[in-house]
Amino acid sequence: MIMEKGISSVEVLPSKSSQVTAVKVVVKEPETKQTQRGKRVGFVLVHAGAGYHSESKAKEYKHVCKRACQKAIEKLQAGALATDAVTAALIELEDSPFTNAGMGSNLNLLGEIECDASIMDGKSLNFGAVGALSGIKNPVSVANRLLCEGQKGKLSAGRIPPCFLVGEGAFRWAVDHGIPACPPGFSLAAFKRNKRKLELAEKVETDLIQLKKRRQSSEKGSRVMCRTCGRPSKASDGSRGGDQIELYSLENDSGTLDTVGAVVVDQEGNVAAAVSSGGLALKHPGRVGQAALYGCGCWAENTGAHTPYSTAVSTSGCGEHLVRTILARECSCALQTEDAHQALLETMQNKFIGSPFLANEDGVLGGVIVLRSCRCSAEPELSQEKPTLLVEFLWSHTTESMCVGYMSAQDGKAKTHISRLPPGAVAGQSVAIEGGVCRLESPES
Amino acid sequence: MIMEKGISSVEVLPSKSSQVTAVKVVVKEPETKQTQRGKRVGFVLVHAGAGYHSESKAKEYKHVCKRACQKAIEKLQAGALATDAVTAALIELEDSPFTNAGMGSNLNLLGEIECDASIMDGKSLNFGAVGALSGIKNPVSVANRLLCEGQKGKLSAGRIPPCFLVGEGAFRWAVDHGIPACPPGFSLAAFKRNKRKLELAEKVETDLIQLKKRRQSSEKGSRVMCRTCGRPSKASDGSRGGDQIELYSLENDSGTLDTVGAVVVDQEGNVAAAVSSGGLALKHPGRVGQAALYGCGCWAENTGAHTPYSTAVSTSGCGEHLVRTILARECSCALQTEDAHQALLETMQNKFIGSPFLANEDGVLGGVIVLRSCRCSAEPELSQEKPTLLVEFLWSHTTESMCVGYMSAQDGKAKTHISRLPPGAVAGQSVAIEGGVCRLESPES
Repeated sequence: MIMEKGISSVEVLPSKSSQVTAVKVVVKEPETKQTQRGKRVGFVLVHAGAGYHSESKAKEYKHVCKRACQKAIEKLQAGALATDAVTAALIELEDSPFTNAGMGSNLNLLGEIECDASIMDGKSLNFGAVGALSGIKNPVSVANRLLCEGQKGKLSAGRIPPCFLVGEGAFRWAVDHGIPACPPGFSLAAFKRNKRKLELAEKVETDLIQLKKRRQSSEKGSRVMCRTCGRPSKASDGSRGGDQIELYSLENDSGTLDTVGAVVVDQEGNVAAAVSSGGLALKHPGRVGQAALYGCGCWAENTGAHTPYSTAVSTSGCGEHLVRTILARECSCALQTEDAHQALLETMQNKFIGSPFLANEDGVLGGVIVLRSCRCSAEPELSQEKPTLLVEFLWSHTTESMCVGYMSAQDGKAKTHISRLPPGAVAGQSVAIEGGVCRLESPES
Repeated sequence: MIMEKGISSVEVLPSKSSQVTAVKVVVKEPETKQTQRGKRVGFVLVHAGAGYHSESKAKEYKHVCKRACQKAIEKLQAGALATDAVTAALIELEDSPFTNAGMGSNLNLLGEIECDASIMDGKSLNFGAVGALSGIKNPVSVANRLLCEGQKGKLSAGRIPPCFLVGEGAFRWAVDHGIPACPPGFSLAAFKRNKRKLELAEKVETDLIQLKKRRQSSEKGSRVMCRTCGRPSKASDGSRGGDQIELYSLENDSGTLDTVGAVVVDQEGNVAAAVSSGGLALKHPGRVGQAALYGCGCWAENTGAHTPYSTAVSTSGCGEHLVRTILARECSCALQTEDAHQALLETMQNKFIGSPFLANEDGVLGGVIVLRSCRCSAEPELSQEKPTLLVEFLWSHTTESMCVGYMSAQDGKAKTHISRLPPGAVAGQSVAIEGGVCRLESPES
């Protein structure tokens, strides 16, 4: 590989906290400028879910994000498409037992794994998705293959190729296209744990209803957050709410959390985004969440006539909340205004937490990673004018925490971070937002 | 039933044809004012697909639309919710052997029926959907039941109820919720017909490719429309293009066409929308189209803080085109501007035919029915100021034809119409748009 002169820098984004109430705006610490020699081959940002990441497993979450970033950058360095780079990152995330995707997925009520995944190509604007897919180790591979096959044009007899397949049909299509099946039956121990907790929770719930009826007391409970998903719940008895709510939550002892995803920009400025999820623990078989749905799980759109910026978005959190707000596409649209940081913050506040489509929810839970890029001139202090790709990247969440990693091709290794709501902030009602800027310069001629 | 004084009128919408090129704007003939005594119980607009409706079967298409309207109005007159009225209309449409939904659905490559359906409630903004569902006579019933169950709040252990179920899981959920299964195996004859045509088409396609290679001629073919779906296709030899392309099209001898749907506004001004489809003929098993997808198949949104109008939309046509443009939601958003007719026309032109998401398609095929309503004062010539619900309803399509029906509660019977592109207009590139206005007055006190 030829290494040429390049520059990478990460800048601090200005805080906008004065403009908002009850919102924590966390600003990333400035990072040291790196001026390593290297090809401008792009940038990747990944997430290992918006939910609750325990301190005890922080190392594992960060480690898988780091590996995922490295895989994507390796692909970009080898000249792969943005979609293939984002797929490589997702495969790494899906293969981790610590994430709720692929091998480590939550199990449904029947003890089976059913995965959702999707991918979008910002250049062609093509999309591929699978829902409730069982028996395939890497659902994102099937989504990517659907996207690729869709780009080849019509099938025989003028039939339009599918972009979204579910269930058994999706499995058959994958196998017919050479994607290997994997043996069933893994994660059975985790299922048994969850199943036991469901039964316990149902018993406790019944007991609570009876207790409520006896007391006929008004509901004055304090908000207690679910340990697993950061969801606030109302306890009927504030003093003991925490203990009671603990029993309601489907704690996943193996540490599996929510949806994983990645966004990528390649050397040409093409963007791609992908997302993959095992869905809610003990979900009904056949339930499909945001990770499979167009506009909801991921979005990628290259700069165009009406879009000054290329944007890529991947979401995580409560599937139904992300679906109803079509959050990935909403973020992408918002990011066409000048101030990316402010645009994302306002979207999370007004179009997500404050969405009329979620008005009846007692907490709105989700997270997004976004990047946007545009070509611009280099820093004024640099004497030579070189074409520069400005990449702004952000993550934002209303859940307790969100684990992210990011890396540019010039970086020797990925940076990882677990973003958390500040103490006292209520999950589902507050927004954390962080991010940075990366400049990717063309190799010198 | 108590019948009280009311008024219903249908007005002509102004033509905007001067503002657009290659677009036919058809304006509905003015209808006689009806001043029957009756409760203001609402309005329904249904469609039996955007595609190609043969003259020979026009009577059947219109008849099923008429019955569907009547079913919805009967429900409204009985005080049912808008969602139940729209479901009643859909059940009638699904039960017809002439539509591509429910019992009369196209078959997939395995000869099975797999249906998509969804419903949205403008009041609660809740949504229910099923995808690739087999073995249930009325998929819309399952979608409506999912919507209803979703409104009851969380399941045990804090689990969020599903709003979208697919495949076998959706079937199990339906049966568990008392929705009866239906015997498999119907429409086998239609499958065999389609299957034979597919094999023939594949042979002809191979022959054509070989012919092309021999000729090495440049592609100058004239556009020929597919008889079934109205899709334009390029023939390599203009003089014989028609005959050749005829063999490519999956003509469905039983007359089944595309997606069916309905939009309803009830006496309170609440709107609901639904859609149901058997999907593409000979689709891959597990393929899910727009009829199951949030924002793509249907949309309903009551008036709110940022929405002066209540809107309801149902789409039909090429699923992949409707998905990529999220057309139902796009229409709903556009309809918040003053001129509904112009807004819909511009949406069909700029956000559908001219969408960057469909830039590589040689024809963009779809149709929509929309209604929007708002409270307003009555006509100036009427001496008494009575609260009036103004309902504007429109249909628009880029396909050869679209069959619609509509009815207000004051009408004795439904009106039906097959809208067609004018002679010479190219399906997939031109827009037909028609519509009317209906005023629903409150019963006199």
